[in-house]
Amino acid sequence: MQDPLTFDPSSVQVLAFDIFGTVVDWHASIAREVQALAPGVDGDAFALAWRAGYQPAMARVMSGELGWTLIDDLHRLILDSILPRFGLEHLDEEQRTQLNLAWHRLDPWADSVAGLTRLKSKYIITSLSNGNIGLLTRMAKRAGLPWDCVLSAEVFRAYKPDPATYLGVARVFNLPPEQVMLVAAHHDDLAGARACGLRTAYIERPLEFGAARPKDVSPQPGNDLHAASLSALADQLGC
Amino acid sequence: MQDPLTFDPSSVQVLAFDIFGTVVDWHASIAREVQALAPGVDGDAFALAWRAGYQPAMARVMSGELGWTLIDDLHRLILDSILPRFGLEHLDEEQRTQLNLAWHRLDPWADSVAGLTRLKSKYIITSLSNGNIGLLTRMAKRAGLPWDCVLSAEVFRAYKPDPATYLGVARVFNLPPEQVMLVAAHHDDLAGARACGLRTAYIERPLEFGAARPKDVSPQPGNDLHAASLSALADQLGC
Repeated sequence: MQDPLTFDPSSVQVLAFDIFGTVVDWHASIAREVQALAPGVDGDAFALAWRAGYQPAMARVMSGELGWTLIDDLHRLILDSILPRFGLEHLDEEQRTQLNLAWHRLDPWADSVAGLTRLKSKYIITSLSNGNIGLLTRMAKRAGLPWDCVLSAEVFRAYKPDPATYLGVARVFNLPPEQVMLVAAHHDDLAGARACGLRTAYIERPLEFGAARPKDVSPQPGNDLHAASLSALADQLGC
Repeated sequence: MQDPLTFDPSSVQVLAFDIFGTVVDWHASIAREVQALAPGVDGDAFALAWRAGYQPAMARVMSGELGWTLIDDLHRLILDSILPRFGLEHLDEEQRTQLNLAWHRLDPWADSVAGLTRLKSKYIITSLSNGNIGLLTRMAKRAGLPWDCVLSAEVFRAYKPDPATYLGVARVFNLPPEQVMLVAAHHDDLAGARACGLRTAYIERPLEFGAARPKDVSPQPGNDLHAASLSALADQLGC
């Protein structure tokens, strides 16, 4: 991480945000939704199991085993596969459809809306998520996330960390990669962006996987900025 | 046009807006920009000439003569071709680049921001323009257009009136076409959407081509709604 004092905030024009875990709290939101539907279920374990299927499902698409598939459809494939493990194989089609849309209703972290609103005053702010455009748009409308633009793997037909996604943001805005900054709570995502020449900001989300298993959020080398929240990032960028 | 009283506003979830001419006033904005750069030029004629190159340039892409090309690049091709006609062949690269970006700085019609803000309270509002994402995002940020989402020909790699664009909006939001309404000031655009099963609303923009040549904005059959402005559309839709 560079010293924030040595990073020039005016060298960047666009901030691209990872969403799941960085801007919204998928763990608590999914746990809440499944417990509302099926009160006896272990919401914590259910959220972790659903999310654990995410990377393997995207890998099946990127390997060519599955054709191009939206995250909504991958979420449904994973949901169907984990329901029996939680004694929920009796859920009918309508219940499964509604539960799958829980990913459209994820709550923002407490600092997200205020932080994004401040960052928007100085930068173009866009999502850059593997989530599909419809999911991201409905999530933003419900949660009040004030995007200038909704970019997604769906636009580039590749999932992060494919370079087509990071370089795609730069191309959309006709900028060199170093004028785009990826903001994320995940080091592998940031490393992918950095390898493409983007600037990077790590956001601490120690409770991403729930209060029972706090995540190590200590700084790692290579990121331009490291912030405890999106409000703290706004402070660092002078917004 | 249906009687507004017979159209059920709750039958639609997404409003997709044409941009050039419908939400922003390209004619006055381009005329103003070129006159600021070259005070002796006929801004009215220049704006019309630039815009007149637009459909033929897109046709060259859709025929395969040109590969996929963003509107920013088509605008530049047209600009270079018309400059000599206006005695502006001396403009250097930087001046041409800056003038080309005039399309990112188009002013909204007086009712656009207020109308969109009201419509956003009840519907998902998205652009559906042949303009590229970067252009539309920068235009919205400057003009205060409160999109939920920025959709463009660039996402679908096809220009309106290609069905892939209209049906693409429905697919992005996982809706049947009849739950999406195209809002536009151009009958050919609306006819393309209608042929794909979308609902349609015509917006009167009599001054789209300048005060010297008022456009016929009388109602034509087939549209679900016909409104004098985006505020009037908000009235009709109960927003």
